[in-house]
Amino acid sequence: MSARNLPVDAARIAADIAALAEITEPGRSYTRRAFSPLFLKGRAYIEARMKAAGLETRIDAAGNLIGRRRGKNPSRGTIMIGSHSDTVPDGGRFDGIAGVIAALEVARALADQGVTLEHDLEIVDFLAEEVSIFGVSCIGSRGMTGQLPDAWLGRQQDGRTLHQAIGEMGGDAGLLAQQSRPDLAGFLELHIEQGPILENERRDIGVVTAIAGITRIEVIIEGRADHAGTTPMTGRADALVAASQLVLDIRHAASELAAQSKGHFTATVGEFSIEPNAANVVPSRVRLLIDARAELRQDMLAFQGWLAGAAEKLASAQGVTIAAPVTISDNMPTPGHAGLLDILDRAADAVGATHRRMASGAGHDTAWIAKVAPAAMIFVPCRQGRSHSADEWAENDDIALGAGVLLHATLAMDEALPFAAD
Amino acid sequence: MSARNLPVDAARIAADIAALAEITEPGRSYTRRAFSPLFLKGRAYIEARMKAAGLETRIDAAGNLIGRRRGKNPSRGTIMIGSHSDTVPDGGRFDGIAGVIAALEVARALADQGVTLEHDLEIVDFLAEEVSIFGVSCIGSRGMTGQLPDAWLGRQQDGRTLHQAIGEMGGDAGLLAQQSRPDLAGFLELHIEQGPILENERRDIGVVTAIAGITRIEVIIEGRADHAGTTPMTGRADALVAASQLVLDIRHAASELAAQSKGHFTATVGEFSIEPNAANVVPSRVRLLIDARAELRQDMLAFQGWLAGAAEKLASAQGVTIAAPVTISDNMPTPGHAGLLDILDRAADAVGATHRRMASGAGHDTAWIAKVAPAAMIFVPCRQGRSHSADEWAENDDIALGAGVLLHATLAMDEALPFAAD
Repeated sequence: MSARNLPVDAARIAADIAALAEITEPGRSYTRRAFSPLFLKGRAYIEARMKAAGLETRIDAAGNLIGRRRGKNPSRGTIMIGSHSDTVPDGGRFDGIAGVIAALEVARALADQGVTLEHDLEIVDFLAEEVSIFGVSCIGSRGMTGQLPDAWLGRQQDGRTLHQAIGEMGGDAGLLAQQSRPDLAGFLELHIEQGPILENERRDIGVVTAIAGITRIEVIIEGRADHAGTTPMTGRADALVAASQLVLDIRHAASELAAQSKGHFTATVGEFSIEPNAANVVPSRVRLLIDARAELRQDMLAFQGWLAGAAEKLASAQGVTIAAPVTISDNMPTPGHAGLLDILDRAADAVGATHRRMASGAGHDTAWIAKVAPAAMIFVPCRQGRSHSADEWAENDDIALGAGVLLHATLAMDEALPFAAD
Repeated sequence: MSARNLPVDAARIAADIAALAEITEPGRSYTRRAFSPLFLKGRAYIEARMKAAGLETRIDAAGNLIGRRRGKNPSRGTIMIGSHSDTVPDGGRFDGIAGVIAALEVARALADQGVTLEHDLEIVDFLAEEVSIFGVSCIGSRGMTGQLPDAWLGRQQDGRTLHQAIGEMGGDAGLLAQQSRPDLAGFLELHIEQGPILENERRDIGVVTAIAGITRIEVIIEGRADHAGTTPMTGRADALVAASQLVLDIRHAASELAAQSKGHFTATVGEFSIEPNAANVVPSRVRLLIDARAELRQDMLAFQGWLAGAAEKLASAQGVTIAAPVTISDNMPTPGHAGLLDILDRAADAVGATHRRMASGAGHDTAWIAKVAPAAMIFVPCRQGRSHSADEWAENDDIALGAGVLLHATLAMDEALPFAAD
């Protein structure tokens, strides 16, 4: 269906996304890094648009930009919607931004129709969702909810600490330990899918059942550096040959797990380096880093169990040494709130959007907000699943349709929230 | 058998190798790089020992250190024996050095026994056999025989050209284009095997049938950089997965070729790098460099033919793009001179050394001298085939036995040379 029949204004959404796309480092793909002057310029644009929509704006202690539309009965709590406006280096125009602008459009549509919610409504632009110059991500959503590790605040970059940098964004890191949002009744984030599923299936909306857990596992393979010319093909301990077999085994095992599971599962070897990396020397050492993502925790545990056994078998078959795989980081999956998923299904039906339930393989601010309040996500399609590059593209009509779902869901949340404690 | 029964003096050999091992950069494995002050210090030691053995010393235009023992009938030409005294960074005590000192010991043994050859005898320490700071190897042996590319002389390192650096070693690069050695009647080089074959078979001596040709082939695999979390396992174009399959295919094909061939064959992927090499991105590009070595040219051609087809099939199976493999460098195999190989077999028999014919998988100065004169090599065992490291080790008795073979072969060459033109 066309977004033009919705109470949201697709042209306003397009204009805002286009305006933010102009606020970017010249001569490279879209780049508006958190903590940079350009980021503040983007924020100034968003804040002006919030004010034009009648919202009261503020920066919270964690450096999040928030625009509030007062409700009739604030004791019912706050409904928050939004995403983030920072980008990766050489990123795209839609990742995060689409969600901020769709949320802003919900507030505008409510104002246009003279609707006042029972709840306070907050439109949020979280600080630094992407991995920032300080090497960590989701600073705003962690900080808003008292989940930012204190040790991170001392991280240094460009001559200042993260603590100081949050201050430069208008926050006050000294208050973060005490942050919590007991008023949060519910949270929704619209985001581009960053994967190809909706486009491939020609669906309008993904109702996100869970944000996959992300586990990073390091494997070190040690062989023997022999002369490439004088060492016969038999009797080598070639770490690259062993690592290559492991890469293929991981691909095979992950594909089988993904095919058999009811949940989303991926495993990718993304980092891979060899030593001594010299033309005439049999490789002696390979380090590889596996990025595994599971909607269902049991899939991750099954993968880790498989990997330990596979590494051991491979080492013995190839005459190399493989230390026990080391789990570098391990985040649990975050399910979307069941009540909100139902609301989203019905909202999609209400605007005539085709939809399916699906997991998010990427991490999002929603995962942190979900620790303290009912939270869920909506995906809109993006072309060929491309993201974090100049090729990132979402059709404006698709974003507007998603904003329409967000509007309907916000109205439904206003009726339903707060949920009875489960 | 023990080297103590030979007319060569094992203790003198051990003392000289130990003395050179002391001339090394402190705090790291044995390092005496060509063109360095330490290299000149090593050369000063060798030159003093040459003079003590009654040799007339000189540096030729290519920077080679040569000690001459006059013959009775210099019109018969020159017999040259030797190797090189430079090391790789963090190298060993024997690679090259053993051959220089064994040749010096032959001259000493002849002097001890009052033997004067018909031919002039030259003991040579070639300049910069190893890949030097100028990025090229075998500078002395190429330069001595008019085979050093003129363009190389302009290469810069540490504020000077190779032309200038050869001058600092006592050479005169301005004369290199005219160098040739029409007087060379025959050349022999003793070297550690740098492989495990002699040790594994408990043989004393390898009579080197050929120095393998070395071909370097670059393969670039292009896939698609997708988000590692959001892109399902199906439908990926993972360049690392494709490259891993290629590494295994190369290993398999090379092993089969080596098993079936009458000649030495190896193929090794020694350089391997991926892009973007980021934990959360499906690898988009892999570059790998194959080092292939063949005693028989037809094996190299068979391998190259196989590789082109394998790359094409793989690209189609994996949904990636693989450009036609690019041959970066391609050196022909260099057979040892048949007459010299027979002389070496008989010399080994004469000293009671067990021996076998075998190829050299490594490159050597002999390959360049062989372009202008009959030339061949003798290998002595080295422990576990280790080389280019602190672990490099050859038993002194084995080197002394090799020096005894070299002495017998030199005497036989003095009778047999010059060979009738083949």
